[in-house]
This record gives sequence, C-alpha cells and structure tokens, in this order.
Amino acid sequence: MKVRAQVPTVKNATNFNMVADSKTAVGSTLENLKAAIAGETGAHAKYTAFAKAAREQGYEQIARLFEATAAAELIHIGLEYALVAEMEPGYEKPTVAAPSAYSCDLNLISGANGEIYETSDMYPAFIRKAQEEGNSKAVHVFTRAKLAESVHAERYLAAYNDIDAPDDDKFHLCPICGYIHKGEDFEKCPICFRPKDTFTAY
Amino acid sequence: MKVRAQVPTVKNATNFNMVADSKTAVGSTLENLKAAIAGETGAHAKYTAFAKAAREQGYEQIARLFEATAAAELIHIGLEYALVAEMEPGYEKPTVAAPSAYSCDLNLISGANGEIYETSDMYPAFIRKAQEEGNSKAVHVFTRAKLAESVHAERYLAAYNDIDAPDDDKFHLCPICGYIHKGEDFEKCPICFRPKDTFTAY
Repeated sequence: MKVRAQVPTVKNATNFNMVADSKTAVGSTLENLKAAIAGETGAHAKYTAFAKAAREQGYEQIARLFEATAAAELIHIGLEYALVAEMEPGYEKPTVAAPSAYSCDLNLISGANGEIYETSDMYPAFIRKAQEEGNSKAVHVFTRAKLAESVHAERYLAAYNDIDAPDDDKFHLCPICGYIHKGEDFEKCPICFRPKDTFTAY
Repeated sequence: MKVRAQVPTVKNATNFNMVADSKTAVGSTLENLKAAIAGETGAHAKYTAFAKAAREQGYEQIARLFEATAAAELIHIGLEYALVAEMEPGYEKPTVAAPSAYSCDLNLISGANGEIYETSDMYPAFIRKAQEEGNSKAVHVFTRAKLAESVHAERYLAAYNDIDAPDDDKFHLCPICGYIHKGEDFEKCPICFRPKDTFTAY
C-alpha cells in the first residue's frame, strides 16, 4: 500500500463504501464495538490455528503471515476494548473455541473472505453509525482496522498465488494499526505513518 | 505471481483445493464448460460496465485494470468455447444484459469476490470432474482459468488499497491464459510461460 500525503481517513479516502447487500447487524456504537471485538477475537483464533496448520503442512512463510495477522487482530481488539472499557468499565472480552483449520490454500481463502467482509461491510457500517453518533474516537479506531483488513486480504491472496514459491521476505506488523508489509521496501506505515523501526517482524 | 521452474498444474501446485462449503452445481464436463462460459460471460459484462464507471468516476488506471480483466475473461471463454464446439458443434455462446455498476471501490470488491469464487470453488470443482472423466483438455483449460482468476482477485484488492494513489503502471495481459501483470518487471507469464512481448498492454 502506498503512502499518501495525508493519513487516509473516511473523509479523504474513497474506499469506505459499504456493500449494497450488507450482512452486518448495526446497533449502537457501544454494541458495534463489542461486535467488532467478537469478530476480531474469532479472526485471531482462526489465524492462530491456520498458522499452526501452515507450519505442520510445511508452509513456513505463510505460517509467519498468519501469525502476524493474528497479532494485528489483537491490536484491533486492544483499540476497541479501550473504548468499550471507558463506556462500560466492567466489560469482559469474549473468548472463542479454537476453530478448525484446513489445507493451507483454503485457509488463505477463508482469511481473505473474512477480511473482505470486515473492510467492505462490517467496518464501513460501524463507521457510519459512529459518525451519526458523533463518536470520533470510534470512527478513528474502526477506520484504522478497516484499512488494515483490506491489506491483510491482499496479502492472503498474494500468498495464495505464490503458495508454492515462498521467498525469504519477512512480514512487518505496525504496532499501532495492524498494517502488514511484506519485505523491507518501506519507511513508514501508510495507514498511521508510524516509522518502520517501530514495526514487529515475523 | 512468481515464475516457478515448471508451469503450475493441478498436479504440481497446492492451491487447487475446493472450498468445503462449495456453491457450485457440478454436471458433466460438457455442462461445466457451458456453465463456465456463462460465468465468464457475466464477468466480462460486469468488468466492462465497471471500466466505464471507473472512467466516469475519474479512476483511469482502475478503468484499464477492469478492461484488461474483461479481456482476460474473453480469453477464457474462447478456450472453453473451443472445447464445447468440438463436442457440440451447434452450440451458441450465451449473452447477458449489461449489469449495474456501483462506486469504484465496491466494484473492485465485487470483482475480487467473483474471482475468489471461481478460483476456490467453481474451477476446482470442474477440474475434479474433468479429471474423473479423463478429459485432459478440459483439465488444462479450467486450470489456466483458475490460476488467472486468483491473480485477478489479488490485483483488484491491490487496486482497492491504492484506490487514491494511482501510478503510471500499465497492466499486461497474457493472450493465452488471461494472467495480468502490473508494471514492467516480468519476463514471461508465470501460468503458461508465454514471453512478455506476446502480452497486450492496458
């Protein structure tokens, strides 16, 4: 993802529309934050299971991609949880059972589909509601997650296409917004502008 | 997509599994060829409409991507039609009404979803049936289309992520299998090994 002159936001970027056939149940922003945490918790568990399966199936680089993306979802959970805790101090994060994993290619497809749903349906829907409620903190948090998810989807499809042609590239995870970069050719996060040296390598 | 030592096939590549929750009705290989032609005809019409919309909305580079991908689907139709015509000489290709188009970002998501369905559900299902019927020509044609579709999906997501940061890259279309490469840094098609100078630029 290229770095633009400004940090991308729902106001200056043109990829924030919600799909016409949305499957997202929209509640209050507090409810939406909890729903996002539940979705991200599921994604974290899924990618943790997929990373294990990828290693067992001999796809070491793809295992690292799943691990980096699982960690990205934890970042999103942290951002969303902080807002819920402000509004509802006793709130406890949900837990999920470890999901099943399949062949590595199908796990990548499953990941891509999940990220596409979040970036083009769930998060745009929640951003719109948070805007209506004037909750700029939630707009900001949902925006960062939304932008990172579509990059994850692209990464999963690129890995799918090169499943049998791995290379030595590491995946670099932005600790602030969950953006993931493959390889070394970057200087800062295109989503939140954090410098490369703050990233975690996988 | 990287070039491997050999042309990727259902036997030497590990991304040919069909999703567990397949939505594809599988018939005989002749019926599947016709179904694929119908699907590709719909995709061609969709991407032609999306290219027009992208131009109208000011996304010139994305318009070229949709045009290249529409042309790729015509290549797949040509490959599939040639096999049907051998089996059923009087067969006529279906036509479809021009579909609606939406905002450019949602058209890219729609395209990615369609390509992901074809590469991880429809074509693996048809390849398996053609293998069962010992129809190696159909296996070959479905394989080429399947491999190109997942690259199209990745291209659509990359364009979605950089929707507000276009560059001058052209898209290069392989005339044999419909693979699309962004930019100049390639020598041959990773799917069918055709050299760069046989490609068409968009």
